[in-house]
Amino acid sequence: MNIVDIIAKKRDGAALSPDEVRHWIQGVVDGSIPAYQSTALLMAIRIRGMTDGEAAVLTDAMAHSGAVFTPEDLGGFTVDKHSTGGVGDTTTLVLIPLLAAAGLTIGKLSGRALGHTGGTIDKLESIPGFRTKISREDFLAQVRRTGFALADHTADMVPADTILYELRDVTATVDSLPLIVASIMSKKIAGGAQGIVIDVKTGAGAFLPEMEASRKLAQALVSIGSKLGRKMAALITDMSQPLGRMVGNSLEVCEAIDTLRGDGPEDLTTLCCELGAELLLFAGKAKTREEALKALDRLLRDGAAFAKLRELVHEQGGNTGALEDGSLLPRASRRVEARIGKAGTVAALDALAVGRAANLLGAGRRTAEDDIDPAVGVELLKKVGDVVAANDAVALLHVNDEANLAEACKMVEDAYEIDETGTAHEPPPLVLERILGD
Amino acid sequence: MNIVDIIAKKRDGAALSPDEVRHWIQGVVDGSIPAYQSTALLMAIRIRGMTDGEAAVLTDAMAHSGAVFTPEDLGGFTVDKHSTGGVGDTTTLVLIPLLAAAGLTIGKLSGRALGHTGGTIDKLESIPGFRTKISREDFLAQVRRTGFALADHTADMVPADTILYELRDVTATVDSLPLIVASIMSKKIAGGAQGIVIDVKTGAGAFLPEMEASRKLAQALVSIGSKLGRKMAALITDMSQPLGRMVGNSLEVCEAIDTLRGDGPEDLTTLCCELGAELLLFAGKAKTREEALKALDRLLRDGAAFAKLRELVHEQGGNTGALEDGSLLPRASRRVEARIGKAGTVAALDALAVGRAANLLGAGRRTAEDDIDPAVGVELLKKVGDVVAANDAVALLHVNDEANLAEACKMVEDAYEIDETGTAHEPPPLVLERILGD
Repeated sequence: MNIVDIIAKKRDGAALSPDEVRHWIQGVVDGSIPAYQSTALLMAIRIRGMTDGEAAVLTDAMAHSGAVFTPEDLGGFTVDKHSTGGVGDTTTLVLIPLLAAAGLTIGKLSGRALGHTGGTIDKLESIPGFRTKISREDFLAQVRRTGFALADHTADMVPADTILYELRDVTATVDSLPLIVASIMSKKIAGGAQGIVIDVKTGAGAFLPEMEASRKLAQALVSIGSKLGRKMAALITDMSQPLGRMVGNSLEVCEAIDTLRGDGPEDLTTLCCELGAELLLFAGKAKTREEALKALDRLLRDGAAFAKLRELVHEQGGNTGALEDGSLLPRASRRVEARIGKAGTVAALDALAVGRAANLLGAGRRTAEDDIDPAVGVELLKKVGDVVAANDAVALLHVNDEANLAEACKMVEDAYEIDETGTAHEPPPLVLERILGD
Repeated sequence: MNIVDIIAKKRDGAALSPDEVRHWIQGVVDGSIPAYQSTALLMAIRIRGMTDGEAAVLTDAMAHSGAVFTPEDLGGFTVDKHSTGGVGDTTTLVLIPLLAAAGLTIGKLSGRALGHTGGTIDKLESIPGFRTKISREDFLAQVRRTGFALADHTADMVPADTILYELRDVTATVDSLPLIVASIMSKKIAGGAQGIVIDVKTGAGAFLPEMEASRKLAQALVSIGSKLGRKMAALITDMSQPLGRMVGNSLEVCEAIDTLRGDGPEDLTTLCCELGAELLLFAGKAKTREEALKALDRLLRDGAAFAKLRELVHEQGGNTGALEDGSLLPRASRRVEARIGKAGTVAALDALAVGRAANLLGAGRRTAEDDIDPAVGVELLKKVGDVVAANDAVALLHVNDEANLAEACKMVEDAYEIDETGTAHEPPPLVLERILGD
């Protein structure tokens, strides 16, 4: 098998055979196929596309390019959740303890992020002492003992994705649907998940703001996961305004704590239950979606979900006192109110603008080398549908470094669209579509 | 300017600006743009194409990526000829002395080849002592003194083509019309030619066997050269059967000597005059094509063209005695007749099969490291239109190593299509189309 013939085949728009795809990925990882051949093939894939069958083989080959977890390693029916990313997306922090409380098995590997705020790993590190770097043995032991663990990706897993992502980033081949799907799903498959739910965000603050693109991504993720024998569901959910009320790292930890105590914002609570319900159904822990939703709601209200968060923090060396006493979490030195000189109803709230404002305050990274400030961010006091009086505070900016404060404040104020006509506005529907695998 | 943006632009099918093309080629040569970005761009160009305007800028940028010859360096109106390659294509060996005899200035840089036989440089090296490696200073001095020189490419010219060709070869991006055109024309431009004639072969033994592809290549070469201010002509010529009667390195030198003495095969003689006439017109050495053809025919018959070959060999250190006494040229140890058991007329003679047979005997390279045997090859006794009796010898194989002799002999015999019905056959027309620049 010759890589030049494989490149020529894709260049001409043909589908690659499973052996050809595996030959490529093997060569990427063992170094026998140089980067300059992979990038030509990546461009051919970007332009010519891949069938779902090809993308499934690519996903599987990438998943097995390094160390993997098997369901046997993890013990029991294992589930996972992935979000395509948004603003104030605290769902993982809520969902993992909630699902563990429901008796599911989750060995969750997450990452840092180049986003408006940090990733799940960054957020968890707001909790003093919390360890996100865990050895494979300790991670598996914790999952088998407690049913769950949540740690940083390790370098020995899915090396093909690491290599190819770096090449895609510098060759304008990031925005290829089969390559995006293979990148996401290879990590889920390598993590050993048997049931997977994907939260595909759509709207201004999403990776793919257009509904049609979000739908195509959701369908492809479900199709490829199903072809690889996983139980799959994707929910296309609203990210036109931020989810919940907090956008920032320790701010979102506080919001997750509230939610796990049954006292979170309605949209975040609902979305966590909707996502979790799919996994309860896959695991046979509920017979109907209604039953699953009820079970999850009960776990949030009766303290079981919060107890699981406390267990997670304890297992991974964090200060459990911080879960009771918010003053032990990183806090910004100053809170600044954002006010709007109009009275009316919030008709729209631009998630992207709020995310950018949080980033300006220091909540996220712009390059991989940046440090994030865990304490800063934006707290939304008003969201779509809320009534505001003239000069009401609509948001609080949690600030340490004031360098970009004026710009961030202006950005938050401009994110609000106020309807002064007296017309009522409803929050946008949260779950727009549900796509299930075979 | 960012190479990733440039790649993305071509990926999406847009035309690159002159600055963008020049930025890329600059980065290729100075090493600031790594190979893995260039190959992604090459694939995007291969799939999306380039306008003639882009290809002209690419050609010019590549031409100026290293050392160049200017018309002032060479002195006078300079001409060049390029052939897309075929079987038994001895035109350069004939044309250069012929044009010099007509008073044109030619600083011809040629190469070795990965073909059925060697390239022009390999063929010239059949002449004992002939130097093809000449310093820049000696080359220019010879052109100014004698009007012409014929030497091997030097590594300091058109480095961008060398780098990009190696990358194209391993990424399935060789067969891109704009990249082919830029590769060919950048070398002509760097060589300082003001008038250029291109011999685009078509038919079984050609690089592009299909007429439509040959025509597109000819049109693109003429268009890009014209855009860069060169006087351009392209002739699309028959390569369904080999040109002349000799296929092999020293065999073709012998045939070139005969032709320069006015005693060559009719097709080779005619083609050399047709190609040369375009350049005489460009240089103002003739007012009409008829006048140019007559002048060239006279130079072949009156000894002037042969005298120029003798001058070339003398200037470049070769044994001029070998031009009079063929036994001083490399000769094969054995000649083997190919015979066909049919009587009739030669209806077709497959140039590709004859070329492959010569290659099997050792006349060409299969990889850049191979040595060629200058003595071996195929001498065609019969060509299309000739009448053969049963068991007539149709060709002589000039053989040293007999390892592949039986296979080569069978290949030559099978290359002949004999019409036994008594129908007459004409040789195919030699010049199929003539495409002129502005």
